[in-house]
Amino acid sequence: MSEQTQLIPGNSLLTATPEEGRALALKIARLTIKITQPDAEVRERLRPDYANDASMLIAIGQTVAAEFSIIAAANNYWSWFSPSEKD
Amino acid sequence: MSEQTQLIPGNSLLTATPEEGRALALKIARLTIKITQPDAEVRERLRPDYANDASMLIAIGQTVAAEFSIIAAANNYWSWFSPSEKD
Amino acid sequence: MSEQTQLIPGNSLLTATPEEGRALALKIARLTIKITQPDAEVRERLRPDYANDASMLIAIGQTVAAEFSIIAAANNYWSWFSPSEKD
Amino acid sequence: MSEQTQLIPGNSLLTATPEEGRALALKIARLTIKITQPDAEVRERLRPDYANDASMLIAIGQTVAAEFSIIAAANNYWSWFSPSEKD
Amino acid sequence: MSEQTQLIPGNSLLTATPEEGRALALKIARLTIKITQPDAEVRERLRPDYANDASMLIAIGQTVAAEFSIIAAANNYWSWFSPSEKD
Amino acid sequence: MSEQTQLIPGNSLLTATPEEGRALALKIARLTIKITQPDAEVRERLRPDYANDASMLIAIGQTVAAEFSIIAAANNYWSWFSPSEKD
Repeated sequence: MSEQTQLIPGNSLLTATPEEGRALALKIARLTIKITQPDAEVRERLRPDYANDASMLIAIGQTVAAEFSIIAAANNYWSWFSPSEKD
Repeated sequence: MSEQTQLIPGNSLLTATPEEGRALALKIARLTIKITQPDAEVRERLRPDYANDASMLIAIGQTVAAEFSIIAAANNYWSWFSPSEKD
Repeated sequence: MSEQTQLIPGNSLLTATPEEGRALALKIARLTIKITQPDAEVRERLRPDYANDASMLIAIGQTVAAEFSIIAAANNYWSWFSPSEKD
Repeated sequence: MSEQTQLIPGNSLLTATPEEGRALALKIARLTIKITQPDAEVRERLRPDYANDASMLIAIGQTVAAEFSIIAAANNYWSWFSPSEKD
Repeated sequence: MSEQTQLIPGNSLLTATPEEGRALALKIARLTIKITQPDAEVRERLRPDYANDASMLIAIGQTVAAEFSIIAAANNYWSWFSPSEKD
Repeated sequence: MSEQTQLIPGNSLLTATPEEGRALALKIARLTIKITQPDAEVRERLRPDYANDASMLIAIGQTVAAEFSIIAAANNYWSWFSPSEKD
């Protein structure tokens, strides 16, 4: 993360690929948690609460989808990008 | 899934059909859970929690809808696609 | 539902009318539940849980709205369609 | 509601005014509940559950907002409409 | 609120400024609660339930954001508006 | 915050950078809480409730994402902006 930003890594929503865009969505979601609960020790203590709870894992998924929706639109859904290999 | 990606299979939001787009939405939703809870054993243990709980099944439905919304927009709602047979 | 699809009936988001679009939203929402909990008996057992719970009925409403949002956009909100009779 | 429809009154998302659009959003939200729980007596029994519960009233608000979002877009936000009197 | 409307004050989504648009979002959210629970006394009794509950305050925030999203789009994000003074 | 506004700081959704847009999303989310629970003492008392609860931290993240979605669209996703340094 660039030193000047706390909330949006690199101060940009643009990424080269969908995979990088999704990773950015995850980072932005985590940074919102971090600014709301700045104590790293507390955040670490909360980890088993959500990582072992199906309901919270689903809620995290909804949050990441919401962030990714913004980033995907910002990147025009990476329509110019051709992955070299698709599965 | 292409080997280089962890979050977006094939590193692309584009699919040939709506059915494939929906399947991609499901995969992306699962990959978000996987990166948040990387332990396959724990994820397996959580399965009966959500698969037998109406409330969580509904929440999963909301998550998949959110992911599909992005993919459908990326594919311009597959407006060019004519399924050979409709029900 | 066409035999080839499990998630999107008819493999298309296009419908002739808003009513059909809404019905499709309901079907797609149900198919997501079905693929997450494939056991019909379990799904049947869960029915009274949500059908008698105000909170879950509301959550189902949110899910269907989310699916319908995608379908309505795909159909350009059926702006070309004139229902013969309005209430 | 026109007799032919169960989910979208009048089989149209178009309304003359924002007020009518909001009323339609409420109706569509209720019709989704109705098709999920068709027993009028049960629905009536659930009414005090949500009408006296702050949390559910908020959730209903979210559902109506989601439905209205679709209807407002369908009507291009009624940008052509001039209410005779604003408060 | 204009006397003719119960759900959308002034029967319009258009406002002169973002601040007024946000205030409208709050009003519309409250009017949805009001039509679902028309008894003012009950609504007053529920106030401490949500005003002292972090979880419900957050949910109210989500509802207002959803309403504001519609209003902001209706006003093309007030892109023509220049506030005289920014903080 | 400019003195004339209670809900939208500076009475504008436009920001120079994504980072500033995200900070605005956080502020707007907090101002909604503030107008719903105007008592600063109560808000302070609720802080440990959400700051130590994984579920609420996730819900806050969803709210901020919803606000940011509006601001990002208002700013056309800052597509004109080139951060001097990306991470």
